[in-house]
Amino acid sequence: MPIPWTMYQTGTRWADQFLLAKPEKQLAGESSSDPGTVPLDEAVRIVRSIAYKTGTETIPTDEADGRTLSESIYALNDIPGFDRATMDGFAIISSDTADATSRSCILTLIGSVRKGLSSISHLYPGQAVSIQTGGKLPEGADTVVLADDCVVQGDRITVKNPVPPGCNIIRRDEDFRKGDPVYPTGWILRPQDIAVLASIGRIRVKVRKKPVIGIISTGRELVPSESIPKSGEVREVNSYLVTAFCKRQGAIPVRYGIIRDDAEELTNLIEQASQECDAIIVSGGSSRDEHDITAQVIHKLGKVYTEGISFAPEKRTTIGQIDSVLVIGLPGHPSATFMVLTLVVIHLLQAMKGSPNQPVYRKFIRLTDNLHASRESDRYIRVTITDDQATPVFGKAGLIHMLSQSDGIVKIPAGSKGFSIGDRVEVMIW
Amino acid sequence: MPIPWTMYQTGTRWADQFLLAKPEKQLAGESSSDPGTVPLDEAVRIVRSIAYKTGTETIPTDEADGRTLSESIYALNDIPGFDRATMDGFAIISSDTADATSRSCILTLIGSVRKGLSSISHLYPGQAVSIQTGGKLPEGADTVVLADDCVVQGDRITVKNPVPPGCNIIRRDEDFRKGDPVYPTGWILRPQDIAVLASIGRIRVKVRKKPVIGIISTGRELVPSESIPKSGEVREVNSYLVTAFCKRQGAIPVRYGIIRDDAEELTNLIEQASQECDAIIVSGGSSRDEHDITAQVIHKLGKVYTEGISFAPEKRTTIGQIDSVLVIGLPGHPSATFMVLTLVVIHLLQAMKGSPNQPVYRKFIRLTDNLHASRESDRYIRVTITDDQATPVFGKAGLIHMLSQSDGIVKIPAGSKGFSIGDRVEVMIW
Repeated sequence: MPIPWTMYQTGTRWADQFLLAKPEKQLAGESSSDPGTVPLDEAVRIVRSIAYKTGTETIPTDEADGRTLSESIYALNDIPGFDRATMDGFAIISSDTADATSRSCILTLIGSVRKGLSSISHLYPGQAVSIQTGGKLPEGADTVVLADDCVVQGDRITVKNPVPPGCNIIRRDEDFRKGDPVYPTGWILRPQDIAVLASIGRIRVKVRKKPVIGIISTGRELVPSESIPKSGEVREVNSYLVTAFCKRQGAIPVRYGIIRDDAEELTNLIEQASQECDAIIVSGGSSRDEHDITAQVIHKLGKVYTEGISFAPEKRTTIGQIDSVLVIGLPGHPSATFMVLTLVVIHLLQAMKGSPNQPVYRKFIRLTDNLHASRESDRYIRVTITDDQATPVFGKAGLIHMLSQSDGIVKIPAGSKGFSIGDRVEVMIW
Repeated sequence: MPIPWTMYQTGTRWADQFLLAKPEKQLAGESSSDPGTVPLDEAVRIVRSIAYKTGTETIPTDEADGRTLSESIYALNDIPGFDRATMDGFAIISSDTADATSRSCILTLIGSVRKGLSSISHLYPGQAVSIQTGGKLPEGADTVVLADDCVVQGDRITVKNPVPPGCNIIRRDEDFRKGDPVYPTGWILRPQDIAVLASIGRIRVKVRKKPVIGIISTGRELVPSESIPKSGEVREVNSYLVTAFCKRQGAIPVRYGIIRDDAEELTNLIEQASQECDAIIVSGGSSRDEHDITAQVIHKLGKVYTEGISFAPEKRTTIGQIDSVLVIGLPGHPSATFMVLTLVVIHLLQAMKGSPNQPVYRKFIRLTDNLHASRESDRYIRVTITDDQATPVFGKAGLIHMLSQSDGIVKIPAGSKGFSIGDRVEVMIW
């Protein structure tokens, strides 16, 4: 049975509001010398429009779970390839039974068919073979009658009622017909898709290469996580966060280490990474200065599209490009970094993998607190979910434990009335 | 800030109805010589109660995403470990400003603190230091006043209004206090948790070993996926499906190959696998016989708890145990196998990993068709989701393409009124 491709493209996964987004306006970086601040959906459009797809590679199908197809898959043969019984019974010729109600229909049992290769290749009028679920119908047979609908005496089978053609069988091309489209380019493979590919004999598939993401952390106060910080120092956290996030999203993270606020060192490292990676993520320290350094370096080496996204409180996100390599400068606080990862960077990774769509899990759930709106910009507030209720999590941006204390995020549109206790709100799950 | 552990145990992820389920009744296999058929929740209880937890191993934290902690994690030190500015401004002593509204409060700027190690270790009354976001407050300082709230002239700073203690700072133990519980045993690590562990210096963690799952396929008609089937043969699909599913769920699949309906060969292979694996999954061919063979072999080698689950149409699922190794016999049709994987086997894997809870994504969504209930048993119907509507997918159990055509599943409780077009139903997403 052919599967309509349009279904795949639009429907079978949750498309979020940014899916298939195309740049509707001129990119911020092109329209103005001041990159300024853009709304979230514009930031996503920028990322999706300048990210390039990675190359392709052919890999074994059983290692392709989670990968994105870079070829369309068609059935090379009819599947199952023969008429197949779906129940235990007797394979017969339906027309033999046409008068079964008015006069007795007696067939001769000429043998039995188990699954696998069969010894009985042809059935002639007046004959029947006993057949096992999964067994191949002999040529000539066109239906299967169940034992309950017959009287069996030795090799004589009396069929009680007429049996239409096609009962209790799967036809030779009922699963897939030769040439049927099975999956389109861009499809993200799931375990059940691996099974479908195995069923049509596709043991290798062409997929997008995993994007290689360079990861740089900046911050004068940062020491590696394995160090014991001296007073005034803190452990570097963002490279761990970005690495685990990229891995989970099917990318290959490459750590370039920690830069302690030196613009020249950062320039050299970003230049090197831009030769070796498909995209670069720089997470700034916690201060304005450092973020500005990242933006300056990107500006020097390439082009800056925007220096901020207008969602409170994590505005400072630089989006730029060096040659064809997209560079994102994230805010330094890990909880802010995580928010930008889940709202923006995920689109970068999806776009590079050539996925037109992306599963985003959302749930409508009752709010335990009031959430006011901002007049200027959309607010994105973390929530925890307990007993099917969403509780906003507020806290200073610099606190790390907030990371583990939220399950998702609620959007409060700019200029709206906000939400009140008891409202059902849509939560995007991390 | 300590995180209440109870929150983790019950609330922060979707607990489905089976979470924390314990066997309430005597296990079926113990109460009767006929294992018979049990409802789904009883099958899950059986699986959860006889599955044993895998052993533990210590691994680098940055490879621990998705793994289950087998130790409780506590903060070994205060984090951040020093009072830290969250804004650029001036670190001062709040009591100096107590009378700032009635008479002018003039402080002497004695230097500046950037992030990282600081040269100014102590602040005395009447003094101020300029401080950068993330910078360490000198001893004595207890608050940060923003530049906007001061008048700065050379090294003289006039503070306009009284500043309470604790403004624009994170206290030394505000993120975590030494000894605070951070994560309990059984917690499934996510990227954000990896970041939190890095922040407290835990670069290695003790986690449950990945369960090793032996996979056996039986069926006289089956040939390996790389073969070109002769007429009457079909490609083996279930081992691909079970392998990809186990990998995605954090288990290590081990394929033991295809058995062509030979009870002795199956006995030998299950015996071997029970020595080498933590659990075994046998997927039967499509006929009743083969399923019976699996059940018989398990019975001979160990104990059978049930031979069926009462959810139409995929009843034939054997749950048994050989020594301490749980053995599940799945139905042969891949679409039926997939349903049992997502409804039953997932609990086996979670239980072996020692996870008390499990994220299950659910969504309330409008139905495009009527779904009637069965009187005897709960029905579980696949649906596709398009344009935020759920459309039931019906089809013969033997068809493989149904695998790729559904996004989730709807439960219709036994004896209920069923659902009608337009009803909002809860869909469990694959």
